[in-house]
Amino acid sequence: MSIFGLFGREKKSSAAAARERLQILISHERQNRLGPDFLPDLQREILDVVKKYVAVRDDQVSIRLDREGDASVLELNVTLPEK
Amino acid sequence: MSIFGLFGREKKSSAAAARERLQILISHERQNRLGPDFLPDLQREILDVVKKYVAVRDDQVSIRLDREGDASVLELNVTLPEK
Repeated sequence: MSIFGLFGREKKSSAAAARERLQILISHERQNRLGPDFLPDLQREILDVVKKYVAVRDDQVSIRLDREGDASVLELNVTLPEK
Repeated sequence: MSIFGLFGREKKSSAAAARERLQILISHERQNRLGPDFLPDLQREILDVVKKYVAVRDDQVSIRLDREGDASVLELNVTLPEK
């Protein structure tokens, strides 16, 4: 599968075409769960970095954190109106 | 599809089970390509943030950048021996 198939990309409608979209997925797998789960802190810092590059308000970001077994997946979605 | 299906997770062998794995995917879609492509800079800064949380050497990180139409996808893979 192409890496582009990994992301759930919207079909281009006229509305969707006027938008800029940034999606960040972070997957963390570890054998034992003894160490601290740093994903929530990592997520906050990555969002701060993203804000240096794109003018994004907090309400333009959706964040989802899922855990399954020894894996955690953090998903950040940013949708911006095109300048 | 579960979000966990998005990542190409290794089958657990005894060797793979002893490893910790962090994978970061960044997808950027934009309607026009006039603005600067900030993904390479963004990638460097995100890697700096990751290094605050996990002791990772540069040679433990593989980076791949793909472009297709108006989308760019950046993939960072970090594999660490479990402490």
